[in-house]
Amino acid sequence: MGINIKYAGCAAIFGEVIKVIIMTDSKLPKLDEKRMAYVRLTSAVLWYTTDFFHKEGFLQLMPVILSPITDPLGPDPGSTVIKTGEIEYLEQKLVLTQSMILHKQLAVRDGLEKLFIISPNVRLEHPKRRESKKHLFEFSQVDFEIAHAKKEDVFALMERFLVGLVPHVKRECAAELSLLGRKLQDVVGPFMKYSTHELEEKYGKDWEMLASLDTHQPFWALCHKREFYDKEDPHEEGHYLNYDLIYPEGFCEALSGAEREHEFGIIMKKIDCDGLDKSRYGPYLEFAKHGLVPSAGAGFGVERLVRWLAGADHIGDVQLFKRVPGEKVIV
Amino acid sequence: MGINIKYAGCAAIFGEVIKVIIMTDSKLPKLDEKRMAYVRLTSAVLWYTTDFFHKEGFLQLMPVILSPITDPLGPDPGSTVIKTGEIEYLEQKLVLTQSMILHKQLAVRDGLEKLFIISPNVRLEHPKRRESKKHLFEFSQVDFEIAHAKKEDVFALMERFLVGLVPHVKRECAAELSLLGRKLQDVVGPFMKYSTHELEEKYGKDWEMLASLDTHQPFWALCHKREFYDKEDPHEEGHYLNYDLIYPEGFCEALSGAEREHEFGIIMKKIDCDGLDKSRYGPYLEFAKHGLVPSAGAGFGVERLVRWLAGADHIGDVQLFKRVPGEKVIV
Repeated sequence: MGINIKYAGCAAIFGEVIKVIIMTDSKLPKLDEKRMAYVRLTSAVLWYTTDFFHKEGFLQLMPVILSPITDPLGPDPGSTVIKTGEIEYLEQKLVLTQSMILHKQLAVRDGLEKLFIISPNVRLEHPKRRESKKHLFEFSQVDFEIAHAKKEDVFALMERFLVGLVPHVKRECAAELSLLGRKLQDVVGPFMKYSTHELEEKYGKDWEMLASLDTHQPFWALCHKREFYDKEDPHEEGHYLNYDLIYPEGFCEALSGAEREHEFGIIMKKIDCDGLDKSRYGPYLEFAKHGLVPSAGAGFGVERLVRWLAGADHIGDVQLFKRVPGEKVIV
Repeated sequence: MGINIKYAGCAAIFGEVIKVIIMTDSKLPKLDEKRMAYVRLTSAVLWYTTDFFHKEGFLQLMPVILSPITDPLGPDPGSTVIKTGEIEYLEQKLVLTQSMILHKQLAVRDGLEKLFIISPNVRLEHPKRRESKKHLFEFSQVDFEIAHAKKEDVFALMERFLVGLVPHVKRECAAELSLLGRKLQDVVGPFMKYSTHELEEKYGKDWEMLASLDTHQPFWALCHKREFYDKEDPHEEGHYLNYDLIYPEGFCEALSGAEREHEFGIIMKKIDCDGLDKSRYGPYLEFAKHGLVPSAGAGFGVERLVRWLAGADHIGDVQLFKRVPGEKVIV
């Protein structure tokens, strides 16, 4: 330990075998002043988040780590997860949680209208994702869901969340922000809303970074073609009732969410269109057949939020135990 | 779905292959009034816990799910974990967290003196553990650690925690406790303390259930022979500076903790005595060689706490997504 290690490995991705070079400093984690500032910011964010959702009337559920089902994370041309973590226990194949989306949808109902979960998500990303500076192969996501809600309810909730969080962090972590040289601007709601069609027209296909760099306030990006559980606009084919929140200053995606598809026939059709294997979603489909409750919700990563608040260069920097794709895990 | 399923499987345990019969009702989770009461109690406990530890000056760390190292959970004659969950990612073998004990010890230090983590723990238990009514193969543990602390600091902290929690739950969840027919008695600190030697003398080897049934207040059970990271009393060989907290009324073990062994030479000797494979603890030992900070701490399971507060028969009842050893996971 304590010296540089190089090793070469192979990973199968999209059927193709590629060469992976991992170079990493294998020193054990050192807690310098900056790292301690990130730890304190993370702690402040976790407390504020827990308190906020409880005060808003949400019930906090326990996370799930192993289940027969998890988020397919696709079809998404941007997804570069090389495989789903899987183990066998007493003759049952269980997968590691990629997000709590399917479990949220099964849990939300009349009598349990507002729920949230702080859950570790494991996404075994391609090592190249290290370069995005915003991908981890393990992170914590705050997932929430609201029965009978519309996207406007989620916008208002998240705006209250961020408008309150920034002054909280500036007050609780003034010394840390100062040490990091971070001048954090107050957030003002309601945030601007743009469709991905507008954004593509203005910035091109890779609009996310350019549009993020172009603003000092978070904004909503509406209408993404993605997973089957996001609702298509019943009045406008090819348009979707979903949304991302984008951080300003190049910090990019903060949150993904949607009004959910809850009608069994449409879910089945979309799973077919996506070319997904139905047998991997058996219990979810069984539940959907008997009727899901319409809902809207979203999920945001704690580390991405901390990275933005802290103005950190790489998302791995804010983790005490780093989980960066393509970097050896020390501990 | 919706009908009973029987299936037979095999699991290797302690080198021996045994026959496992799993019978389970494979209905999808139904949220009746009782299950909703458990959900509300769990949520109240999570909020209180987060708030309590922050107000006590603890920093909240993020959990870790995959790491090269995890808690050996032994040698413990009571441990019946059949294997450690393991996956391979980019040529690195990573194991699922059984507890955050080793990571806590690596994190705690001057400048980060008080920390806590709410972390999912995966322990792939033998299916027979279903019968104990207090084992899950996945649960959440509140793990905390305090630099330079002694066991008396942990006793006082946990007594403040429980003395405050019970009235909080009675106030926040009065309707739920009434629905469950649960008359929850206030907790009065300081709790009684008994050594395991005394307890064995009075109740025999299986003292835990008998002693728990014999009391209406939680009590501390001191001095257990167990994992290498628990400190042996330097003044009395064969005695240990560790402790369990035992719930009353037959709800048994609430918490395990200890003053930690931090001296490299002693850790190495104890790992040898326990017959553990040193290569499985490489990064931990590397860190220990350069000096661990003395600390004390503990971990308690959220579901066990809720089970006791709710007076639930089986711990699986309090989980929205059941994770009972030997029962098929539906979702």
